[in-house]
Amino acid sequence: MASDGSKISMGQYLFKRISQLGVQHVLGVPGDFNLFLLDELFKVPELKWLGACNELNAAYAADGYARIRGIPGVLVTTYAVGELSAMNGVAGAYAEHAGFIHIVGMTSRLVQKAKMCIHHTLEPGMDHQIYVGMSEPVRSAHTVLMDDSTMAEEIDRVIEAAVKTRLPVYIYVPMDVPAVKLDAKRLETPLNTQVENKDAKLEDTLVQKILEKIKGASNPAILADVLAVRHGGRDLTKKLIEITHLPSYSTPLSKGVFDETSPYNNGLYNGEVSFPGVSDTLEKSDVVLNIGPLLSDSNTGGFTRRLTEKQVVMLAHDHIQIDGEKFEGVHFLPVLKKLVVELEKSPKEYNLPRPQNWSTIETPVLSSLTAGPITQDYIWQRLGRFLRPNDILLTEAGTAQFGMPDATFPANIQHVTQTFWSSIGYTVGACLGACVAAKELNHPGRVILIVGEGSLQMTVQEIGSYIRFGFKPIIFVVNNNGYSIERAINGPEQTYNEVSMLWDHQSLLEMLGARKATGIQSRSFACKTVEEVEKVLDDEQFAKAEYIQLCEIFMDQFDYPWRLTGQLQVARAKFAKMAEEAES
Amino acid sequence: MASDGSKISMGQYLFKRISQLGVQHVLGVPGDFNLFLLDELFKVPELKWLGACNELNAAYAADGYARIRGIPGVLVTTYAVGELSAMNGVAGAYAEHAGFIHIVGMTSRLVQKAKMCIHHTLEPGMDHQIYVGMSEPVRSAHTVLMDDSTMAEEIDRVIEAAVKTRLPVYIYVPMDVPAVKLDAKRLETPLNTQVENKDAKLEDTLVQKILEKIKGASNPAILADVLAVRHGGRDLTKKLIEITHLPSYSTPLSKGVFDETSPYNNGLYNGEVSFPGVSDTLEKSDVVLNIGPLLSDSNTGGFTRRLTEKQVVMLAHDHIQIDGEKFEGVHFLPVLKKLVVELEKSPKEYNLPRPQNWSTIETPVLSSLTAGPITQDYIWQRLGRFLRPNDILLTEAGTAQFGMPDATFPANIQHVTQTFWSSIGYTVGACLGACVAAKELNHPGRVILIVGEGSLQMTVQEIGSYIRFGFKPIIFVVNNNGYSIERAINGPEQTYNEVSMLWDHQSLLEMLGARKATGIQSRSFACKTVEEVEKVLDDEQFAKAEYIQLCEIFMDQFDYPWRLTGQLQVARAKFAKMAEEAES
Repeated sequence: MASDGSKISMGQYLFKRISQLGVQHVLGVPGDFNLFLLDELFKVPELKWLGACNELNAAYAADGYARIRGIPGVLVTTYAVGELSAMNGVAGAYAEHAGFIHIVGMTSRLVQKAKMCIHHTLEPGMDHQIYVGMSEPVRSAHTVLMDDSTMAEEIDRVIEAAVKTRLPVYIYVPMDVPAVKLDAKRLETPLNTQVENKDAKLEDTLVQKILEKIKGASNPAILADVLAVRHGGRDLTKKLIEITHLPSYSTPLSKGVFDETSPYNNGLYNGEVSFPGVSDTLEKSDVVLNIGPLLSDSNTGGFTRRLTEKQVVMLAHDHIQIDGEKFEGVHFLPVLKKLVVELEKSPKEYNLPRPQNWSTIETPVLSSLTAGPITQDYIWQRLGRFLRPNDILLTEAGTAQFGMPDATFPANIQHVTQTFWSSIGYTVGACLGACVAAKELNHPGRVILIVGEGSLQMTVQEIGSYIRFGFKPIIFVVNNNGYSIERAINGPEQTYNEVSMLWDHQSLLEMLGARKATGIQSRSFACKTVEEVEKVLDDEQFAKAEYIQLCEIFMDQFDYPWRLTGQLQVARAKFAKMAEEAES
Repeated sequence: MASDGSKISMGQYLFKRISQLGVQHVLGVPGDFNLFLLDELFKVPELKWLGACNELNAAYAADGYARIRGIPGVLVTTYAVGELSAMNGVAGAYAEHAGFIHIVGMTSRLVQKAKMCIHHTLEPGMDHQIYVGMSEPVRSAHTVLMDDSTMAEEIDRVIEAAVKTRLPVYIYVPMDVPAVKLDAKRLETPLNTQVENKDAKLEDTLVQKILEKIKGASNPAILADVLAVRHGGRDLTKKLIEITHLPSYSTPLSKGVFDETSPYNNGLYNGEVSFPGVSDTLEKSDVVLNIGPLLSDSNTGGFTRRLTEKQVVMLAHDHIQIDGEKFEGVHFLPVLKKLVVELEKSPKEYNLPRPQNWSTIETPVLSSLTAGPITQDYIWQRLGRFLRPNDILLTEAGTAQFGMPDATFPANIQHVTQTFWSSIGYTVGACLGACVAAKELNHPGRVILIVGEGSLQMTVQEIGSYIRFGFKPIIFVVNNNGYSIERAINGPEQTYNEVSMLWDHQSLLEMLGARKATGIQSRSFACKTVEEVEKVLDDEQFAKAEYIQLCEIFMDQFDYPWRLTGQLQVARAKFAKMAEEAES
């Protein structure tokens, strides 16, 4: 099955193509319908296999990998039991445009044809492709490799879609197919993964319109949202900000997209649920370049952005909108590229930079605690000060997600948080992928995971994978006796918001492999007071992250971040108004 | 929202109906879209809430509960992230007819109408019911409670379908709906959960035909398969066997369906992959009453049953077949009931019992090991001897599943194994449900879980739930350095079949909560030799199961049960033949 110069096995073809993207590790879980495929993977020396504990975690990891590397992760699962277990992870990657290539081993073509009642089917006579339909809403492209003659082009088509759409794609591989011989020469033609708009002239027109808007504006601003990052526009966005030095804003989902220590950082905009002065200042700008918007509830302060069509230049992945005129299907990336080129040529023409527009908004210091119980007001800004440039930070759904925006990040933090899809447990899997990506990139920063104890219970086993593969993240476990975000939403004292409080987090790393007997070093800490937190965070040895570490932070179960409370107030008012309007 | 005599909230109505089935515990994971519903659950004193660590595990638990209780389990999840995480668990319950009622909290009707881009949706403007379509292949009925006027009847319809079909059903509850007032009087009319065939006269005809077959047979036999158990026919099947004392056979999936210590036990029939003599003897029977067949690969020795249409009387959940004549849509249960009544009236008329037909097949003793390394030949029969009447046994997919059929069970073992769906990690979740069911039944036996270390890593956190809720199963962890079933299938030495070998199973129970500091007792054992296994299994204190215990059994990674090897040989030959035929 090895390549003989002109021919190459389907399996190797697929993995060579994946390697051409820059991917070095493939994640997943083996199963009898993908073993032959994995045999082919093992013949491609450019790629390494990393088995996760389960498929949902592996999907989260592929998503986390994609967010850090900026190229699709690769997930291999097996027929039915594997692919369906991964479903929620795929859906999250779809919602947040952190797509990956999901390769599913399935029954052989002959077995499919015979509709055999083989294990992992649902009943006798079932169409073996029934599960292919189930993933339809959570992918942008797919192929079932049934026909030898089109396999190579199908693989190419779907991989190209993965890169261009940043959404999940599926490649279904019947188990007899990995050995099929394909034309190896085809690999010499690079894939076309460039995002291009059909109408290059339209792009030029749009760029001119935007330049005019900037030129004519007295107080323009940049609102850099998360899809700028997800669609490969992070560096361009940063460059735009560096050239223009326009007052710049991030969102809950995009936090970290630009340097928050810079003078043109105007803060994090989340509609009404922003720090004092932030929304007022942005909303007074006469032109707002909104790059990569993702307009979900928790990313817009519960839909309380007050920006008019006149003000906003929308640079979205699926449209551009200027002065209320919408250009459907135009991707922001080529437009932004041209815009940066133009601005770079003659910034003075546009009166750039304009330091007079920089905000004087001071980020409030929420707490001056130096001792006693650890509070929401205190912890997030303190953890922010623990960060160092280049750290990769994963913030779990729940209180962490609503608390972390209070912090000011040092330069070049890559922040992974799933505020839109909001699947708890996600970051524990995503952290594995982030570690893999950091390794591939030889990334200079640390990997830091902040997760609540309830979320951790969802996906805890993957910490064993960190240890198995030699990764050394710092893991903060916020232990506040249950699902505090849900307590804030409803039933603060209802027992359904409780989780087991019996786990011994202090022995977790040891149990999962990092202990004396294995020779793998680890350290664990428990903090019940501010003094204890300060001691750990000030510990130079801890900060070095030379081995895997866990720091448990105990907090009150009824203490919520102000942003969470604020967001809920806005949401409740909105829903009440909707109900009232529906009644009348 | 409390019942005011004539009106009751939708939420309470639903849970009262569920309570009427005999259910006492509801499983699931809270999420913001189901919290109002859970508030209503908490007002129904007949039901208790048990939160699991994650939704897949909770689905497995609901499945395990259904298998032991014989009534549907109940699973509550939240919109998108929860319901999709549970998908593989629902599919397994569909395949193996261990259905449960899956209640999904979703966005409110107003929010749906506005197509708001709220968290857990995929993109702006999305139809909020998109996930409803994704579960279509894995349910027998569903309802989305949108219309106040039909809610009560819709709930009734879907619950009735759950009980009758033994397949999963879905009830989607928008978050504004639990408070809707329904007619409480309706609860006084019991649900119709009886399985009935449309044509009672046809049933009588079929019973007469079957009686004639038995009468005219010289060597009739009973082949009791798993859907007899799943469809509530276990007691009837046992009764049929007790009345007739016909030579009786189980299958890999139905093992334990009747008393294996009885003289009419003829063994476990799995086509060519049976103990010597078993298939020959059954296949020579001139009439085989095959109750509740599930004709999947691993339950039929890779489709090597050699039973003719002439021989077999098929008593299936969806058809009856006699002498090759198929009666579609006829459920075996009412037919079996009538058959038992008839045979009980005058067994002598049918020349019953016929001890002369009992087999003299001796179950071979596979190993006489008394010392040294633990082998597949040895361990399963030994674990079989450890069992006591009334034990509930859960056998994980993998070597355990193929090994356990070697054992002879004492009377009244309830055996849970997922040989058809074969999702690894299943039993760890299912064991939680089995423990809940055993508690509700005040069941006299122990709960025993046998799981491989690779499968355990999939779903390990749920052991924390056993401890949290005070359950005390005995957990055997077969530690053989990876996925041995996959090693047997392909790539025995490939590293993709490895899992982390760094876990310290000996501290697992303590880490998850059963340790001195919590006052919850536990014991853990590690066995690397037969002597060590014997010592643990002979320990009376261990056998009493007065607290949670874990016994780790180390085995060679390349040692496979003979049934697994045999099954694979058969499968390989079959697939080779299919390929050959396709070529020609």
